Amino acid sequence: HINSIVFLLLFIMLSYYLCSFIVLIMFFSLPAVNAVWPMPQLISSSTDRYPLSPRQFIFQYASGSSAKSGCSVIDSAFKRYFPLIFVDYLKKTEKHMYRTFSMQPMLNVYASIHLSFPFSVVDKLSVSSGQASLRAKTVWGALRGNKTIHIRHYFVNKTEIDDFPRFKFRGLLLDTSRHYLPLPAILKTLDAMSYNKFNVFHWHIVDDPSFPYQSSTFPGLSSKGAFHPSTHVYSQTDVSRVISHARLRGIRVLPEFDSPGHTQSWGKGQPGLLTSCYKGSVPSGTFGPVNPAMSSSYQFISRLFKEVASVFPDPYIHLGGDEVDFTCWKSNPEVRGFMQKMGFGTDYTKLESYYMENIINLTKTLNKTSIVWQDVFDNHEKIPEETVLHIWKGSPAQIQQELSDITLAGYRVILSAPWYINHIAYGQDWTTYYNVQPLNFTGSEQQKSLVIGGEVCMWGEYVDATNLSPRLWPRASAAAERLWSDEKTTSSVTDAFPRLTDFRCRLLRRGIQAEPLFVGHCRHEYEGI
Amino acid sequence: HINSIVFLLLFIMLSYYLCSFIVLIMFFSLPAVNAVWPMPQLISSSTDRYPLSPRQFIFQYASGSSAKSGCSVIDSAFKRYFPLIFVDYLKKTEKHMYRTFSMQPMLNVYASIHLSFPFSVVDKLSVSSGQASLRAKTVWGALRGNKTIHIRHYFVNKTEIDDFPRFKFRGLLLDTSRHYLPLPAILKTLDAMSYNKFNVFHWHIVDDPSFPYQSSTFPGLSSKGAFHPSTHVYSQTDVSRVISHARLRGIRVLPEFDSPGHTQSWGKGQPGLLTSCYKGSVPSGTFGPVNPAMSSSYQFISRLFKEVASVFPDPYIHLGGDEVDFTCWKSNPEVRGFMQKMGFGTDYTKLESYYMENIINLTKTLNKTSIVWQDVFDNHEKIPEETVLHIWKGSPAQIQQELSDITLAGYRVILSAPWYINHIAYGQDWTTYYNVQPLNFTGSEQQKSLVIGGEVCMWGEYVDATNLSPRLWPRASAAAERLWSDEKTTSSVTDAFPRLTDFRCRLLRRGIQAEPLFVGHCRHEYEGI
Repeated sequence: HINSIVFLLLFIMLSYYLCSFIVLIMFFSLPAVNAVWPMPQLISSSTDRYPLSPRQFIFQYASGSSAKSGCSVIDSAFKRYFPLIFVDYLKKTEKHMYRTFSMQPMLNVYASIHLSFPFSVVDKLSVSSGQASLRAKTVWGALRGNKTIHIRHYFVNKTEIDDFPRFKFRGLLLDTSRHYLPLPAILKTLDAMSYNKFNVFHWHIVDDPSFPYQSSTFPGLSSKGAFHPSTHVYSQTDVSRVISHARLRGIRVLPEFDSPGHTQSWGKGQPGLLTSCYKGSVPSGTFGPVNPAMSSSYQFISRLFKEVASVFPDPYIHLGGDEVDFTCWKSNPEVRGFMQKMGFGTDYTKLESYYMENIINLTKTLNKTSIVWQDVFDNHEKIPEETVLHIWKGSPAQIQQELSDITLAGYRVILSAPWYINHIAYGQDWTTYYNVQPLNFTGSEQQKSLVIGGEVCMWGEYVDATNLSPRLWPRASAAAERLWSDEKTTSSVTDAFPRLTDFRCRLLRRGIQAEPLFVGHCRHEYEGI
Repeated sequence: HINSIVFLLLFIMLSYYLCSFIVLIMFFSLPAVNAVWPMPQLISSSTDRYPLSPRQFIFQYASGSSAKSGCSVIDSAFKRYFPLIFVDYLKKTEKHMYRTFSMQPMLNVYASIHLSFPFSVVDKLSVSSGQASLRAKTVWGALRGNKTIHIRHYFVNKTEIDDFPRFKFRGLLLDTSRHYLPLPAILKTLDAMSYNKFNVFHWHIVDDPSFPYQSSTFPGLSSKGAFHPSTHVYSQTDVSRVISHARLRGIRVLPEFDSPGHTQSWGKGQPGLLTSCYKGSVPSGTFGPVNPAMSSSYQFISRLFKEVASVFPDPYIHLGGDEVDFTCWKSNPEVRGFMQKMGFGTDYTKLESYYMENIINLTKTLNKTSIVWQDVFDNHEKIPEETVLHIWKGSPAQIQQELSDITLAGYRVILSAPWYINHIAYGQDWTTYYNVQPLNFTGSEQQKSLVIGGEVCMWGEYVDATNLSPRLWPRASAAAERLWSDEKTTSSVTDAFPRLTDFRCRLLRRGIQAEPLFVGHCRHEYEGI
């Protein structure tokens, strides 16, 4: 059934990041044309097809392209996708087969330029005899055209694709605090994310259990707060490798430094930062959230975030702000004194608001926009209008209400609650992730436009490098299609099943340890045992 | 915390299989003495310890041992366990450390013989200054003493262990029909089984979806019934590799050829074997269970089982016999005619009994004992008294009743129902497997003695090589301890948690992709990404 490929000539009309006006040639395999995942907005394909020679195939910049050799994003895409496309061809044992094959008449592969309106809204791919093109608004959009493996017979089908993402924020969260994830596990996840057209890696890098981020400003945070000071940390080199690996795959890295709660590990390397809990009139020896009554806390956060803002190029920082337990604050006489001084009475949500407002404003002075968990909205903090709210909890009805409320208040929102993929259940639970309707809530068109996307969360209580990949894929792929594709053309689980089954085999073939959906087989089973 | 090892001198007093009267020297690491998993029946250890030189350490047969070099089971154990014990020592980068270390005074390692009563009931390990011994009834028992990694400081604690398994059948089922498992995945599972003291690999090798067993008598079964005739099959060589790999680790291979139901894939290569289902008076084109009305069916089973009996050396064959659907039989006029002829009326359980009795007797003529799923007992087939019943279903109360009923009827029984490990749930579900009390049913001591053991079942609907290891381990380890250890000394989940957490890290270190129990870390995280 794997009998065709689609030949892509990618015309990148506007690149806002690194390269502009480049031409990129891409191939991709379609076991059946409809097996593209996630589903393009528009696709039509005919049975007309043209043979193609892998031996004569090269990626190249078109003459006249304003992007030239040296554009790192496209250069590395050329390098990465050739072996993905020509997997079998590159296998020594099978070389002979393709040498024979390449004797057949072939389509000439060449690059050319199509100038078009630079702000075109859609990405277009069209393939016909001797002519193929893809128009993308941005280089990142073009990268996401690279659905490219398992080519065996090297034919190219006549195909037209118009494509664009439904949501611009398509995120995936990894939690490297509850378990340390070795760098290769993160890089591999980024690879898989790109195959699924995810574009934001939300790095929940620190939390209560450990602080693996090796800060240059505060080295004690990881030397004392990581599981191990040298083996279970992310050095500055590690972090920049992640950012660079992600960037070349069109993925932003959104760092989260969650506070004032979820900071137990911070306290180890930064004495005095956390609230000392009291039992009666004496400290109990345990600690609560960051102490919001001390100016030193804000000075610390300010210095830490200054570093974070320069290490992570993304214009957003996730500040957390979830699940703040007031018990310890209430027990601490200093905090109680501060409450009185500030006129907060006994309403500790006001104290929480005070803290969050301070660090949001502090983030703003670093020219970064804040993303915060929904708690910050629920507790009625005064928050700048550009802040993004992130929904992580609630029943389906509560989630709809929250979407309604947050967008009515004019804030942008990211939806994660239905995509807590760390929760597992027996059977095909991908259908649950697939059936989410992110815009199914009461609100105006204006409100709906404030839903900028969604995010799959893989919290780390029960997950580390041993089970991350099979637990993520292809379950997260269900959310990927929901975030990319038109809901109307992808509403049927029954229709999705064979495409996703096929896509999962493609992930396997690309080295992603994606688990099976149900009984059956892939032509090439996972061999990395 | 990893600061000691236990030095074992294994005296194998009786070997019934290959080697007799051999001496085996073994070391094992104990991060803390109680971290042995599964828990030995009796263990005592003191803080007295003796340094030990890895550079001077060799495995050797004692002079006077009646087993000598050439005993494959022990030779290969020598070879296998040295690198497992001296993991760090063998790492080039860390060699220097141990060279330095080996300058310290060391315990002389030597082998000696202790003659003892050949039929001793327990396996004993004792370690004291310059003297260590383990007595095992069999070579297999001795193999299970090899709990042996993560030695870093090379000390040996003064320790006494008396050990023996609670149940003699400690099985694990893999299903290679719903998904094909490449050979390395099976071999790796056998490795992990041996670390967990499992001793029976129940190979559910064929079923409805595919027939990967490459039969020499009926090559059509796999060429037509496997997912792929050449890549998704187990050749005779593959099968003998599995049997040999298992044997060297003290594991029996119990093959299952489940019939008369669960045989859809058989029908493809053996036309006429399955019952043709009828819609009214015409065949519908679909097929049901093996046709029990045709003598050709029994001739086929007889020839197939003759091959199976010679390929698999184990004295038992699992015949299945579960979930027989009567619908198709009822629709088939030939089968209805046979019912009438045999005087079965409309009671199709009698027809099922007739079939099962035939193939059980047929198995008996091959000098093999049958194991069958509980359905065969539930449907009141007349079955030979040596047949073993295998419980796979029911509520806890129903399971207790079934145990009671089967043992009252005098049959031996294997328990699997509480250990369907393919069923997953969020959180620490290993505790469920740990809390099973296999002998908690109404019955005499005689009845209880008929419970020969239990088996973890990993059915393959949602499992293949991508997720097998992290889904099996350490969840199956919970059952392993229940089957090996004294229930009284291992009744607490709270006590088991730190030991199992530690054991899981040891599995990781030995290359088993075992998933985490909860938040935390291993000194060496999984790196096989």
